[in-house]
Amino acid sequence: MQLSIIGYDPAGAWHRFASTVEELLANKNPAGITWIDVEGLESSDVIHRFAEEYRIHPLTVEDILDTGQRPKVEEFDDYLFIVVKAVNPADELDFEQISLVITENAVITFQEKTGDFFDGIRKRILNNAGRIRRAGTGYLAYSIIDAVVDEYFVILDRMGDTIESFEDRAIDESDDSFIRDIQTVKQNLLRIRRIIWPLRESVNILLRLESKLINKDLEPFFKDLYDNIMQAVETVESYRELIAGEMEVNLSAVSNRMNKVMKVLTIISTIFIPLTFIVGVYGMNFAFMPELGMRYAYPVTWGIMICIAIGMIIFFKTRKWL
Amino acid sequence: MQLSIIGYDPAGAWHRFASTVEELLANKNPAGITWIDVEGLESSDVIHRFAEEYRIHPLTVEDILDTGQRPKVEEFDDYLFIVVKAVNPADELDFEQISLVITENAVITFQEKTGDFFDGIRKRILNNAGRIRRAGTGYLAYSIIDAVVDEYFVILDRMGDTIESFEDRAIDESDDSFIRDIQTVKQNLLRIRRIIWPLRESVNILLRLESKLINKDLEPFFKDLYDNIMQAVETVESYRELIAGEMEVNLSAVSNRMNKVMKVLTIISTIFIPLTFIVGVYGMNFAFMPELGMRYAYPVTWGIMICIAIGMIIFFKTRKWL
Amino acid sequence: MQLSIIGYDPAGAWHRFASTVEELLANKNPAGITWIDVEGLESSDVIHRFAEEYRIHPLTVEDILDTGQRPKVEEFDDYLFIVVKAVNPADELDFEQISLVITENAVITFQEKTGDFFDGIRKRILNNAGRIRRAGTGYLAYSIIDAVVDEYFVILDRMGDTIESFEDRAIDESDDSFIRDIQTVKQNLLRIRRIIWPLRESVNILLRLESKLINKDLEPFFKDLYDNIMQAVETVESYRELIAGEMEVNLSAVSNRMNKVMKVLTIISTIFIPLTFIVGVYGMNFAFMPELGMRYAYPVTWGIMICIAIGMIIFFKTRKWL
Amino acid sequence: MQLSIIGYDPAGAWHRFASTVEELLANKNPAGITWIDVEGLESSDVIHRFAEEYRIHPLTVEDILDTGQRPKVEEFDDYLFIVVKAVNPADELDFEQISLVITENAVITFQEKTGDFFDGIRKRILNNAGRIRRAGTGYLAYSIIDAVVDEYFVILDRMGDTIESFEDRAIDESDDSFIRDIQTVKQNLLRIRRIIWPLRESVNILLRLESKLINKDLEPFFKDLYDNIMQAVETVESYRELIAGEMEVNLSAVSNRMNKVMKVLTIISTIFIPLTFIVGVYGMNFAFMPELGMRYAYPVTWGIMICIAIGMIIFFKTRKWL
Amino acid sequence: MQLSIIGYDPAGAWHRFASTVEELLANKNPAGITWIDVEGLESSDVIHRFAEEYRIHPLTVEDILDTGQRPKVEEFDDYLFIVVKAVNPADELDFEQISLVITENAVITFQEKTGDFFDGIRKRILNNAGRIRRAGTGYLAYSIIDAVVDEYFVILDRMGDTIESFEDRAIDESDDSFIRDIQTVKQNLLRIRRIIWPLRESVNILLRLESKLINKDLEPFFKDLYDNIMQAVETVESYRELIAGEMEVNLSAVSNRMNKVMKVLTIISTIFIPLTFIVGVYGMNFAFMPELGMRYAYPVTWGIMICIAIGMIIFFKTRKWL
Repeated sequence: MQLSIIGYDPAGAWHRFASTVEELLANKNPAGITWIDVEGLESSDVIHRFAEEYRIHPLTVEDILDTGQRPKVEEFDDYLFIVVKAVNPADELDFEQISLVITENAVITFQEKTGDFFDGIRKRILNNAGRIRRAGTGYLAYSIIDAVVDEYFVILDRMGDTIESFEDRAIDESDDSFIRDIQTVKQNLLRIRRIIWPLRESVNILLRLESKLINKDLEPFFKDLYDNIMQAVETVESYRELIAGEMEVNLSAVSNRMNKVMKVLTIISTIFIPLTFIVGVYGMNFAFMPELGMRYAYPVTWGIMICIAIGMIIFFKTRKWL
Repeated sequence: MQLSIIGYDPAGAWHRFASTVEELLANKNPAGITWIDVEGLESSDVIHRFAEEYRIHPLTVEDILDTGQRPKVEEFDDYLFIVVKAVNPADELDFEQISLVITENAVITFQEKTGDFFDGIRKRILNNAGRIRRAGTGYLAYSIIDAVVDEYFVILDRMGDTIESFEDRAIDESDDSFIRDIQTVKQNLLRIRRIIWPLRESVNILLRLESKLINKDLEPFFKDLYDNIMQAVETVESYRELIAGEMEVNLSAVSNRMNKVMKVLTIISTIFIPLTFIVGVYGMNFAFMPELGMRYAYPVTWGIMICIAIGMIIFFKTRKWL
Repeated sequence: MQLSIIGYDPAGAWHRFASTVEELLANKNPAGITWIDVEGLESSDVIHRFAEEYRIHPLTVEDILDTGQRPKVEEFDDYLFIVVKAVNPADELDFEQISLVITENAVITFQEKTGDFFDGIRKRILNNAGRIRRAGTGYLAYSIIDAVVDEYFVILDRMGDTIESFEDRAIDESDDSFIRDIQTVKQNLLRIRRIIWPLRESVNILLRLESKLINKDLEPFFKDLYDNIMQAVETVESYRELIAGEMEVNLSAVSNRMNKVMKVLTIISTIFIPLTFIVGVYGMNFAFMPELGMRYAYPVTWGIMICIAIGMIIFFKTRKWL
Repeated sequence: MQLSIIGYDPAGAWHRFASTVEELLANKNPAGITWIDVEGLESSDVIHRFAEEYRIHPLTVEDILDTGQRPKVEEFDDYLFIVVKAVNPADELDFEQISLVITENAVITFQEKTGDFFDGIRKRILNNAGRIRRAGTGYLAYSIIDAVVDEYFVILDRMGDTIESFEDRAIDESDDSFIRDIQTVKQNLLRIRRIIWPLRESVNILLRLESKLINKDLEPFFKDLYDNIMQAVETVESYRELIAGEMEVNLSAVSNRMNKVMKVLTIISTIFIPLTFIVGVYGMNFAFMPELGMRYAYPVTWGIMICIAIGMIIFFKTRKWL
Repeated sequence: MQLSIIGYDPAGAWHRFASTVEELLANKNPAGITWIDVEGLESSDVIHRFAEEYRIHPLTVEDILDTGQRPKVEEFDDYLFIVVKAVNPADELDFEQISLVITENAVITFQEKTGDFFDGIRKRILNNAGRIRRAGTGYLAYSIIDAVVDEYFVILDRMGDTIESFEDRAIDESDDSFIRDIQTVKQNLLRIRRIIWPLRESVNILLRLESKLINKDLEPFFKDLYDNIMQAVETVESYRELIAGEMEVNLSAVSNRMNKVMKVLTIISTIFIPLTFIVGVYGMNFAFMPELGMRYAYPVTWGIMICIAIGMIIFFKTRKWL
């Protein structure tokens, strides 16, 4: 569990780490804005201590500690509570819950796991880049959610590459591993969709919320965020359609290959079966078989068999089966 | 049929069982809140007696007795009527209808079957844990519905395990039992969905209801309940998608296995069919067959046959059929 | 065509049949409520006579006579016009249009065919059972629609039995008759759905209608009716899903059975084809075949052939094809 | 291009043809209602001349001339503009665009092609049948759209017959022509749906429009029209479902027939393959084959072969493959 | 990067190219309307310079530079910001982002790539054709979007031709290339749909926007634009349905052809297999086989074999397998 605090106002900014909540709260920025970041949720005591300090509702505390929440926005008297799901840029699709408590002069972020992608925001605060130091807690919240959404695109790009590789595999492979890989990507897309859709809805709620924390000036930013999320949603949908297409291609390719094998092979069998019958006839041991003694019976038989074979090939050709 | 009554106010609480309705009603808590619990609906007289006492509409009584109701909320002048469906934690998916009549100072629960999962609530009342004794009948109703919803997750977790076991079976099995099991789980998911969706709608109605029973303070709790139900809904949907995926995998696996069997076997047949024709030719009994008398005809024939076999294998290899 | 009239008020009730409209109208109940029932629409004169008497709009008359109407509710200045579709409890799915014209003190029902299931309502009126005599024409209309909806469940139960019987047939049959029967039930479900959905909508309109005919007191009854219809809708939907499931099971079962047949048979062929080739080799009539003269050539050949057969069986076993 | 004009008021009505616009406009009915009918859109000059006379917006003129419009309703200051698509009762599905410009005392209809089905309306005007002469231009517009919708049912009935004929073909045929015919009907249904849905929407707009042209008295008529369109929509939907069902039946029938052929034939092969092996064995020419010289070897061999054949048939029977 | 400026008012119009922003801005039309066109987004400095001049929000600048935007409309205090996606009439489906900033007396268009299809609009301005010179910036914006939408139909027509060519290929081909081509068109349709749907929504927003830039007079034009977009949407949908139909036809055709091949070939095999067995029997070398010595055994055997063959053909015919 790691505690850190950033204080800033238009005039200045500082960043400190703390080992206890008391130490952290002693550092609160009285005039400007305070951003407290809690990484790791192992100690519920710490969270309860914050809850007490910032008068956080018991249900909010429960939601922070239960990492199985859906992304959501809840408005309380003193604060705004936002839950988002971040994706970690690991190989396996791995979600992390990030809860934001936004008051008028403080933002507290509770991260499920240590390690995050907020260093860019911290630098912008410390270096006074852009408008962040001059804007309020609403803008900080926007920046944090924006950073989370940006990470979605990293994951989606990687999935896009995997899906592109399916294009060749769909034609060549007829293995269970292909369908298994397809299913894995499909399930991952569904899992991502399940965190993006409610986030979209949440940002929409923020846009319509008449809260003093999200004021009129911030509207274009949240609208922009909303557009970004819509873009992610559409990417997921187009990936799903691409995958469905690849499955159709694979199904068709497997069936076409099988059909070709079966057709050529069956045709070979069919040509030889009548011929084998004919040679069987003259392999019979009847005492009285006039053909057996004839002078040119053998070459004539060969001739007949060649004619039958050619006839069948021509028949297959006219029927376009060959 | 089992009747019990709990009376409580912030100062104290008691729990009693009764054998008749009169005995029960004699125990009503005049000042605080009364929770009457009726388990088993065998005796409609008992329910009519309650209806009389609490001025319950005849249609509500009908709904309590008819256990085929959909989850719903109905607001009457004197009371709020809620129907929920509980799932029993048995092996077979088994629903139980629980009807709640909520007045200003009493909650009456009618359970279809004896045995429930409300012991936790009873203990919290008797031990004065949390806010339950201080809160009104609305909070008690919330606690009861919450306990019902919690039980859904127990069942859903168990179904999740079953679905996970399908992952291996989808590749290995090509039996009717697999598709039968898949269908059973699918039907159960549909049955659960059919009770969760209207419950979600009902809680939504409760949230928008301007009733003095569900006041502003309770809103976060019912919102939380709503979130829980949404989580259950999403779990059901994701299970349905997982199952659909497993069916696709199974279809593909069965077809791939069949294709492999057919391909190898057909190839074997195809190699031997022309060879069998050749040996048939020299099994003919024609008097005049020059090859038969030749010195090296036999080994030459073998050579030709081996060449044909190798040629065909190479042909199959180049076509990637082998 | 059969005409009957029921007159009632809280104090009394009577039921009479009539052969002409004039006779019928002479019997109108001046003080209380009159229920005129017209069975059979053969004579449009009769309907026009009623239209004149009760100032019914020409378009309403058209709708009454055209039995291809969808269930609907229409509010006119003087009356409420409701069209419902009843199902007759025959073996074949057979619909009957019932049109209701509801004025302040009269209900006129026009039934497409003679024979109905309203005897229960008539008895309740004549025996003064329940609230029917004390309530207005709105309650009578509710009772009639309720009786129609109850009949839906009779039909749905019967369909449920048919669908249950599909469960075994799905595994065992691979006949066109199975798929035909499935389609028939599916079409019937669609036909029922097509009459229930607009009825649901109609009752919803009735609930929101601010008409003096459907007053506040009747609201719980129409809500209850709405719930019943929703139940029917859900039953139809769940039947559709059950049928879709059975079709999947059938598809899978047919394909599995075919696969089994093909696999075992192909394996038998494959084992014998190389063996047949070998015996063919030693059936050749070449003059110089050293093996033919060897002492133990025959048993050795047998040995080789048995080895090949066993080898192939082992190969199939390791590949799990057997 | 054909120009005609009808003038009517409650007192009288007349119908005239004209060769030029000027001649037509000279005939305008000053007091009553004028219906100008333009068949054929070859001469845009004519349409521009009307546009000038009736102050029609340039975009409306464009819409009249572009026959690729979707059915729509547009309200302008002076007039109401309605576009509908009529179906011609030819064998091929063939649409015709009909544009209506409705002012307070004139209706102008622009038909894409000559020939229409409005003779009934013209007769009703000239013969003073029904209310048409007493009603305003709104009622005339209703009558025209109603005639267009009636024609849809003629086409739908014909399609219904075609779909019915699929019922037998689905079982018997396994030809590409069947699937082709199915697709043609499917596409036609989609094309019809694409003109009915926006028409439904348009009539809905007309119903809600607060225009003096469509007054309260006309509401039941437009509601009735709306119901008719809904009926057409539902017919299309039910046809689509019927077709989907027939495709399933066909798929299943083709696969069942193929399975039967394959099964019986494969079984025959399988029985004879081991027998052919046995007779091959005793066709070998080894010098030392003790069985060859035995007295009853031949009948014993026959006995063994018959036993094998019977054994296999029994095996197939127990497995229900036969 | 190419900069051009058009200035116009009802009295006159001029068109100039510029190499720098300053040169361009020096040419602004003080009285009338200015249309600045920026082709190519390579130099963000240029865009920032315009942003400064016209007080464009930083987020708008970001959106102009990021060519991965969805079509959208955003209203700012001083201007309206519209993003549309144009399709380039190349062989490959290729999108270009066009951003419009519309102020009261200027329109600035930012095009992703050089080359456009706005020459028609420029000519209409310079030649004073139609109402364009008399109308405001809203009409110019309408003209630009209309030109973009018109280009969609060029692309859609070309796709329509491709889809038509599928009609024959669906029956004849059973190649992976067919399914690949189908998928390509499908994906392209999805990509087009993804830019048309939000455009439809955007135009809808413009219609409901109470902005002084889009006044009441322009409403019919934007409604017309909306209708055009709806037409494009419907064309895309109908193409998707056509493609789905062709895939079904192809699936059915491939399977029918395969079935025919298999059936005829299997029947040939089945007829000869029993016959081959018979001739095998009389090829056996048993010493004691009475038939071998009989006088007419050979022709009798032929007779039996011919009977068997004819019998099987008759059997197949009665079963309709042939």
